[in-house]
This record gives sequence, structure tokens and C-alpha cells, in this order.
Amino acid sequence: MSADGQATPNIDTVLELSRRHSNWGRWGPDDQRGTLNLVRPEHVTAAAALIRRGVPISMALPFDEAGPQTGAVGRFNPIHLMIRDGADVIAGSSVRDFYGGNDRHFRGTDDLIIMPLQSGTQWDSLGHVVHDDKIYNGYGAEWVSSKGALKNSVRNGAGGMTGRGVLLDVPRALGREWLEPGHAIGADELQRAADMGGVEVGEADFVFVRTGAMTRARAEGTWGDYAGGDAPGLGLASVDWVAHHQVAAVAADTWGLEVRPNETPDVFQPLHIVFIVYMGLWLGEIFDLDPLADDCARDGVYEFFFCGPPLPFTRAVGSPLNPMAIK
Amino acid sequence: MSADGQATPNIDTVLELSRRHSNWGRWGPDDQRGTLNLVRPEHVTAAAALIRRGVPISMALPFDEAGPQTGAVGRFNPIHLMIRDGADVIAGSSVRDFYGGNDRHFRGTDDLIIMPLQSGTQWDSLGHVVHDDKIYNGYGAEWVSSKGALKNSVRNGAGGMTGRGVLLDVPRALGREWLEPGHAIGADELQRAADMGGVEVGEADFVFVRTGAMTRARAEGTWGDYAGGDAPGLGLASVDWVAHHQVAAVAADTWGLEVRPNETPDVFQPLHIVFIVYMGLWLGEIFDLDPLADDCARDGVYEFFFCGPPLPFTRAVGSPLNPMAIK
Amino acid sequence: MSADGQATPNIDTVLELSRRHSNWGRWGPDDQRGTLNLVRPEHVTAAAALIRRGVPISMALPFDEAGPQTGAVGRFNPIHLMIRDGADVIAGSSVRDFYGGNDRHFRGTDDLIIMPLQSGTQWDSLGHVVHDDKIYNGYGAEWVSSKGALKNSVRNGAGGMTGRGVLLDVPRALGREWLEPGHAIGADELQRAADMGGVEVGEADFVFVRTGAMTRARAEGTWGDYAGGDAPGLGLASVDWVAHHQVAAVAADTWGLEVRPNETPDVFQPLHIVFIVYMGLWLGEIFDLDPLADDCARDGVYEFFFCGPPLPFTRAVGSPLNPMAIK
Amino acid sequence: MSADGQATPNIDTVLELSRRHSNWGRWGPDDQRGTLNLVRPEHVTAAAALIRRGVPISMALPFDEAGPQTGAVGRFNPIHLMIRDGADVIAGSSVRDFYGGNDRHFRGTDDLIIMPLQSGTQWDSLGHVVHDDKIYNGYGAEWVSSKGALKNSVRNGAGGMTGRGVLLDVPRALGREWLEPGHAIGADELQRAADMGGVEVGEADFVFVRTGAMTRARAEGTWGDYAGGDAPGLGLASVDWVAHHQVAAVAADTWGLEVRPNETPDVFQPLHIVFIVYMGLWLGEIFDLDPLADDCARDGVYEFFFCGPPLPFTRAVGSPLNPMAIK
Repeated sequence: MSADGQATPNIDTVLELSRRHSNWGRWGPDDQRGTLNLVRPEHVTAAAALIRRGVPISMALPFDEAGPQTGAVGRFNPIHLMIRDGADVIAGSSVRDFYGGNDRHFRGTDDLIIMPLQSGTQWDSLGHVVHDDKIYNGYGAEWVSSKGALKNSVRNGAGGMTGRGVLLDVPRALGREWLEPGHAIGADELQRAADMGGVEVGEADFVFVRTGAMTRARAEGTWGDYAGGDAPGLGLASVDWVAHHQVAAVAADTWGLEVRPNETPDVFQPLHIVFIVYMGLWLGEIFDLDPLADDCARDGVYEFFFCGPPLPFTRAVGSPLNPMAIK
Repeated sequence: MSADGQATPNIDTVLELSRRHSNWGRWGPDDQRGTLNLVRPEHVTAAAALIRRGVPISMALPFDEAGPQTGAVGRFNPIHLMIRDGADVIAGSSVRDFYGGNDRHFRGTDDLIIMPLQSGTQWDSLGHVVHDDKIYNGYGAEWVSSKGALKNSVRNGAGGMTGRGVLLDVPRALGREWLEPGHAIGADELQRAADMGGVEVGEADFVFVRTGAMTRARAEGTWGDYAGGDAPGLGLASVDWVAHHQVAAVAADTWGLEVRPNETPDVFQPLHIVFIVYMGLWLGEIFDLDPLADDCARDGVYEFFFCGPPLPFTRAVGSPLNPMAIK
Repeated sequence: MSADGQATPNIDTVLELSRRHSNWGRWGPDDQRGTLNLVRPEHVTAAAALIRRGVPISMALPFDEAGPQTGAVGRFNPIHLMIRDGADVIAGSSVRDFYGGNDRHFRGTDDLIIMPLQSGTQWDSLGHVVHDDKIYNGYGAEWVSSKGALKNSVRNGAGGMTGRGVLLDVPRALGREWLEPGHAIGADELQRAADMGGVEVGEADFVFVRTGAMTRARAEGTWGDYAGGDAPGLGLASVDWVAHHQVAAVAADTWGLEVRPNETPDVFQPLHIVFIVYMGLWLGEIFDLDPLADDCARDGVYEFFFCGPPLPFTRAVGSPLNPMAIK
Repeated sequence: MSADGQATPNIDTVLELSRRHSNWGRWGPDDQRGTLNLVRPEHVTAAAALIRRGVPISMALPFDEAGPQTGAVGRFNPIHLMIRDGADVIAGSSVRDFYGGNDRHFRGTDDLIIMPLQSGTQWDSLGHVVHDDKIYNGYGAEWVSSKGALKNSVRNGAGGMTGRGVLLDVPRALGREWLEPGHAIGADELQRAADMGGVEVGEADFVFVRTGAMTRARAEGTWGDYAGGDAPGLGLASVDWVAHHQVAAVAADTWGLEVRPNETPDVFQPLHIVFIVYMGLWLGEIFDLDPLADDCARDGVYEFFFCGPPLPFTRAVGSPLNPMAIK
């Protein structure tokens, strides 16, 4: 029992929500695209009409060593290295047995990245979470092995991810700069943010939920425990609303989309189980929604054309991307 | 003198073209965006009208070990590794001192990529090529050192890259499956492809030049020497046409955009010098244009909305991406 | 039946050898050091007497992009990259917001390696091979998961690997430059090489078996299919001899120590099962034995002090090293 | 002037010491081995007599994510990943289109490391430090470019590094557990530690200087600012002593061997300039000297056989290793 006389949510709550909203089999036994199946051409053409001012706005956090990762869960910030560079040219090093041979005129530079695919602005694939030895659509978890995801890889989303985008700026709707850690966003606050923005969330929408967590990290000049620590985010009370609206994807400006600490003491990231494993809903994390939110606040328009496919990393369970809102 | 009585092009030809089309200073002494400065909001809104059928088409080649790289010039195919996976869960390994602690319900999977940023479908940044110790807009090449590109990094393109896209399907315009290696595409063939497609190339367009080189690799079941070997591509005779049309970017389905062997015996990749170093033109390489070309052939429409920003890798000289044509 | 009337060896042969020579439990139920338990202080002091001329000889192949790996089985050659370098200094790049700050005098260089731990001269750990869901000493294979080897990691060998080394130069004993691929070395040829070298193989010895495969690759100027292709190596008929002599470790100058194609059509690398999984014998591969063999042929001494521990990579199943013979 | 009336040391002090002890040209204009040239066979054979008890003692810190690095100067702790593992086998994942094909019996595990070569127990190569645009023996710093060290790479030490080792346990000689940060070890304290150990440091010795910094990190349960922060270490007053004894190499249990803060306000790591650039002296860092120190304290013997070559990483400026003292 929690303080208000309600039973504390637990794994049973999660299982009940999962059963209620499961999409296993909905798009056939071989489906690996989940809620992206909802996006039909008419959604894309309708969304095109939202390009009014001709302004693209990126929602990507730069990928670099200054990112939020701490090494926990094996996730570190991107490591960028040069393979050949301009200093080699200036120093005269490149003439000595280097790439490009003895050509005096052309010199190239090249570089390399080492990065966890979920270290920055990212889509989770439908193979990112395992529950009860299963991944989305009932595939056994053994399909995701050291070789990568032979089922539900992120490539299944690489051909699409275009349509109507909607920003739900929750802190602005509540008159705050940001939500506090532990703030569980429910259906009412999502609806309030939609109302504030003058938008109705609809089928096949790409929904971006701003919590202000990134705003706060900026204000404080440090990521603190942004990666994996306490955070505002979607709570269990948001699940029915999200499922009811039949959205294509949900992304947030936090490490893990969900409120932390989790409302379920016995389950880590319970919405990941409901959303990813059972609904096949695509989740985006570490989206930088501040520039978009500023723009929306200025022009009062909270809907836009969205284009943000993952990169087709074969057998990957996540992918960095540069998601674009175009208004 | 070449066989036809024409002087063989050489570094002087390249320098003359560079002088003729240099954009150094055009957008100010601090500019690092080059031809992306051409894209204005009206271009984007006009392009939105090209979304008619609501069909997104990816131009990305999957990023994996089956890519075209051979290790030459330090470029290898992406290396994908799992940090934790579903097999760990099935095997019971994850309960032993693993990520996620003693929670019995939630299990996540995570992965990692090691890749040269120019190993697959990619934008070259304006810091990718050095000529005469300088990069675009006159910055010294020492700005691109082991630390990365402090000037002209790929992040300068990450906020935009949306607008009108045009496919120039040269082999189809010439009635062929693909162009042969060594085929230098000039202004006439580019125009012929535009005419075939019923499009006029205009200011701020994103131009995609299909040579069929990837089609051929697919037909032959091997990349062969796709990466760095002889190839069809833009020739010196295309430069004035490209410059005249004031396009935002040019991308092709080859390793290096230009015809190989290069027409200039004394200069490797001469157009890279003219386009990148002097014009500040964004070049895309290893774009898979076949699905788009098939679609354009079917509906006869060779223009579309384009959204394909690089990822904001800080101080990088190139970036993989998933470029989308939306028709 | 094989051509000579002998039954073709198969999994049953492997299982019989495994049963015959299993060391499971021999050094206790918690043992993870296997045959290294055989090495006692008196072996090390006795071996010290073999340092007569004061000449150290490395058995390591350089670790670089010119190594034998092809990418098969996920093994590629080491990728070496600079983090900061001397060209940065010469070019003046390092004064701009670089490591080391504004000190004019000190400049450092730094580098980085990306490598499969078994891509070059290496020890296999006792967790490198799984048979029937088990690793050495009966531990379940789930102890080697994405997190690495929680049992039988290569660190178990990092404190030792010193003692008497013996070179068995099989091709020289047979009067050849190298053995041909498919040549299965048996007990008789091992003994013949020992006799040729005037050495008796004894308990706790580190035994180095030269096949000449690396000599051949050098002579031919290419690795060919050295990595994983047909090769000379230990055959089934060597197992009893190796086991009988109670050696500490066996290493060879081939990719996989064993003859290829394997003698057992239904089992890949059968000796790896007998040696690693059941005997707990440490195996070394891709050792460059040519400089040592040349030296031994010159002075006629085929025994030496050996020092070649793996590096203590935590939870690793293999380790590169620089093994030293000191004569 | 410093408080005690002595002039504060500065770049001139460093240059004077460098001139006094420079070995440029001593072993020829092409030399890249520096002080390793001092080690002759008679040193190695004499050292063999120090193997009395037959006990090998590793001086390597395990290479893993728990290492001392913080990411500063681009140095992070080793990242270990599995390519294939035992959990795949247990889960049945490996039968699906995996390495090893359809063989039911053999299963292998493989792994990979990503690590700065100077992130743990390591030798600095003679190309690791640049002063006045030069590296050891007068080579221009441009020889160390993005391609790596074409001169003075760590491979030049890979064939040797065997001989007499001597432990100078300074804190024990001073009756302390460890030296405090900022403690500059001079000739007197080095000699006192030698006297305490009953050893005379001689030509071609490998000298290990214990400061107790690692002991302290262990006692405090945290690395703190071990990597790059204030630390005990060799001071300017040790240089003449080190040079006088003509040692082959010096290693310590700290991040950077030298006292920090450095005694020269205008020069970072001044001894690195004198030792590496001018003397060509091999320096080892992050050596774990505690097990060795414990053993020496127990048996009162502070000399031993040393075997600790770097791995032959081609064109590298540093190398991890597993250095062994054998007593």
C-alpha cells in the first residue's frame, strides 16, 4: 500500500498493462516494425502541409566526449579519432609513405568513431528489451545474441520515421522551467501539454515529450546523474493515453523516457516492457527538445513535419540519429 | 597533349576552375557552411509541395561488415559488437553481477559501433580536403589535427540539409544499366538526365547523380574495387554546370563521386579540390540511389523532398547518415 | 572407414581422448589455471640455468594491419590510431585548446589500439572453447557471456608462464623448409623433433611446435589462407604424447595449432576440445618461431628460459603477448 | 627565487640537464633504442643468477574498466567486448548462421579490446615526447603523425627488456606507507632505498621506483586523481643519479613517474623531456609494485631477474605489458 491508500504498482501492474495493449500478432507473426506499421502515406502527405515557414530544427545532441554517459551499463560517450589530418599535411608527414602516394596536390582527412549506439540521441529498436525471455512479437531473446539482433533490429525502422510530429512541452504547460526528478507524467499532463500547444495527438504521430531535464543540465552546467539517475518522465498513468492515441513513436529529452525512480519497486523501467516488448512502440531518448520548444513557444505552433529515421545499422538494437522537425 | 589534340588536364586546370568558382569569403570570413548558405526557407517550403504520395525512400546502404571498404586509406567496414544481449538472458548469465542488478523482470540489450565516419553512406565535411595547406574558406589545414576539425567540421551541416532533391539518373538517360568505369560525366549528360526526368535543376537543390556503380556491384555479387578503384563519376566538364546551378549539395552512388581514373594525371580527385576546398560544396558518397531510381522510373517524377542532415559528430570531417527522399 | 582401413576419427574419438586425459577436478573444483598448476618453483629455477648466452628472442609477430586476419570469425587485424601526435606540434595545432594547455615546452604523443585479443600472437584462455555447454573444469558456458569470462579468464595465467621452453622444429627434423597444409603431426614426429634438438620434453615445459607455416607465408609474400585455411598442425595422434609429458603449455606458429582440415569430419578443431576444455592446457597461436628456430639451428640448443605471460585483461578469453625465449 | 633562496627551476634547468645527459648520436645517428643499447648479454646472464626461489611476480595492474584513467588527455580505461560467447551457446543462438557453421560440437568464444596504449601498465616509447619539435636522437616530430611513429616506435624495445631488476622501495626506506603527493624524490632517497635493499644500482639495470601511490589508492578505495593529479615521484634532483648509473629503464607505480605538481612552473613533466627526448631512457608507468615490494620485504632481496618487453605494436608510441620479476 502506498501512502495514498493505493496499492504500490508492481510487476502485476506491468503485466496487466502489457496484456491490455499488446500488439503481438497484430501486424502478422513475422512483424518487426511494430507501431511504424501505423504510418500510412496519407499521414505523410498530411504532415507535409505542416512545413509552413521552411525552418528545419534538429533535435540531436552533439555526439562527443561531452555527452551525458558515465560508463554505466557499458555506455560511454563517443570517442572520435582522426585517421589522417591536416596537421600531417602542414608538418610534411603525409609525404612519407602515406595515403594518397606521391600526389603533391590532394590531401584528405579522415576520421573514426567508437560509440555505444545508445550513447546519445537515439532510437531504441524493438529488440532492445527482453521480458520473460521474449522480445517484441514473441520472438525468443536468443535472436539477439553476440552476433546482434537477427530479429527486431533497428534496421526495421530505417525506411520510415517520417510523418507528423507533435511537441508536448510539459514543463511549459505547467508553468515551470523543468520537471523535477521523480515527477511521473500521466495522461492528464500529456493532454494538458497538447491543449497548451493547441494540438490533438493522433494516429501515427511522432510524439516528443519535453521534461526539461536537458534544460536543467544546461542551467546547472553539468549532466550530474542525467544518465540513469533520478529523472522526470512518463509514468504508468501515461500508458493508456499513449496506447489509445495509436502513436508511431514517443521520444523524450531524458536518458530513459520513464520517470526514475521507477514507480514499480520490483521492476526496472516498466514502461520499456509495456511499450517496447508488448506494444512494439518505438522509443527515442536523449533528444534535445530545447531548440524546438523555444521555436514552438515563439510561433505557438506545436506540430511539424518530422523526419528522423535511424541509420540502418545491421543487427543493431539501437541507433543514433539526427532527428529533424521541419516547420 | 591527349589523343584528341586537347591538352591533358592537370593541376593548372584544377586551379583555374577553383579560381573561377571559389566561394571563399562569399558568406563572410567566418563561414563554415559553404553552399548550405544557399538554402533559404522558401526553398524548403517549396520542396514540401513535392511530398505527393507520402512515400519515404531511404538512400542509405546498410552499415555493416558487408560494406564496400577494403581497409585502404584506413577505411574499414563498420564493426558492430554487443555490450549485452538476449542470449545472456536465456543462458542465465545476466543474473550474475550484471547490468540491471537483481531485477528479475527487465533485461536490456545494448550495442556498439566502431566505424570510419566515411565508410558508408556519408557526407564529406568542408574540412575533408586540403589543398595548398588550406581548407574551405581559407582556413589553415592545421585546424584539422588529431583533435579533429576545429573549423569546417561536419556539425556545420547538421542543422539543415532539407529542401528539394533531384535525381539525375544518367545511365537511364543514356539507355544503359550502368556507366562503365572511367566514364566521365559532363554537363551535357547531367542536363540530359535532367531533361529525361523532366526537371530543371535549380538554386539550393540537393542533386543526386546515379551512375549505376552500385547496381553493377549488386549484379556482379561483389564490390570488386568499388572502393577506390576505377569508376564512373563526375568529370571536369561537369564543374561549370554544377557551379552555375548553385546547388546545395551533390551526392552519388560511388565511392568518390568523381570519375576514376582521374582525368588529371598529376592530381588525385581534382573535383574534391574545386568543390570542397574552393566552392564549399557538400559532397555525398556511397548513396544507394537504386530504390529511388526505381521509384522515379515508375512514377516519372524525379524531384522530391529531401531530408538528410549529417549527424552532429563534433569536430568530425565526415558523417554517416540515412538520407531520405520523400515523394 | 578411411582409405587405409582405419575408422575415420569422429566425435567419439574426441570424447574418448577427452575422458582419458581430463583434468577436471585434478586441481580442485575451483581451479581455473589448468596445466599451469604443474609449474613449480623448482621448474623455474632449473630453467634459469638455461640462460647461457644472455640472448633474448621474441616470438611475437608485430601487431599491425599487415597481420594474418581476414575478418573471418569477427577477427580483424589490429587498428592503430593516434590520439595526439608530433605533426600536431609541428603544424602548431597543439597550441589551440589542446591537451597540455599553454605549456610551450612539453608535447606528448598518445595512441590507441582496437584489436581482437586473438588476432595475433596470443594465448587462448581456458574459457575460449565450449563443449557440451561446458568450459574447463566443468563450469557452465554461461559464465562466459557478454560481460566476459567470469570463470577461466586469461587473467588466471597472468601471474606465471615462466619456466623451461623447448622448441620442437618439426620441418627441420624432417629435412624440410615447412610442412604442407594437411600435415598432421603425431607423437612420432614430435619425438623426432625433440631427438633432433637433443632435448627431452618434461613436466611443466612450455613446448613450441614449429610447422614452418609462417616461414612459408613469408616466402610466398602473402598470408594466403593462413587464418583458418588448410594448415599443418598437431593431429589426434599427438594427444597422448602431449598429455603424457605433462607440459604446461603448447604453442605453434599457425593460426589454430591443429592440422587443417581437421581429421574429424564432424568436429571442428577437435584438439581444442580435448586440450582446452578437458585437459585445461594452455594453447598459444600465431607465435613467430622463425627467429628462435634460426638461433637454435645455429647453436644446436633447443631449450631455453621462457617468459611469456598473457596480459591481465580482466574477463578476457585470450590475450596478445610478447613471448620471450632467453638463451 | 623560491622560499629557500634557491632559484625556482624552469625551462633553463631542464635544458641544462638535457645538454648534460643527452645521448643523441651516442649509439649512432639512426639509433631508436636509446638506453636499451646498454644491455649486453653479460648483463642478462648475470641477472639469471638472481632467479633463486623460482617465483615469478607480475607488476601489471589488470587491464579493465576499473583502471585509473578518467578520459583526460584522451586516455580512457580499456573497453572489453565479446565477439561470441558461451551464453550464445547455451541459448542456442550460435546454431543460427553463426561462426563455426553447423558443427554441433565445437563452440569458440572470442573477444576484443579498445584501449589507449598508455592507459595502464605501460612503457613509453622514445617517440612519446616532443621537445622543440624534436624526438629522441634528433628526429623531427613529424615522424610521429596520424600514421603513427615511423621513428622511435615502441617496437624498438620489443626484442629486449630482460636483465637485472632492482626495486627501490622509497616509502619503506623512509618508514612510511606511501609518499605524499608533491614529494620529489631525489638522489639521496633513491640511494637510501638502494641501501635499505642492500643493492647497488648498476649499468643496464631496470629500476623500479615505488612511491606507494598505488598502495594509497587501494587503501582509500578510489583512484582519486591518480591519473594526472598531484603525486609523489622523481624530482629534478634525481636526474644526475639516474644518468650516472647508466640504467636501462626506470618505472614507477604512478601515472607519470615524476613528482606532481612539477617543480618547474613553466614546464610540464620536465623529466620526460630530459629522460625520453634527450637521454633516450625508457620509462614505465602505472606498474603495480606492491606484490613485489611485499615479497622483497619478506625475503630481504631487492634484486631479481626482469623480463618485461613491450608488445610489438607497429608505429606505436607506447605499449601495455605484463612485466615480470622473477626471484
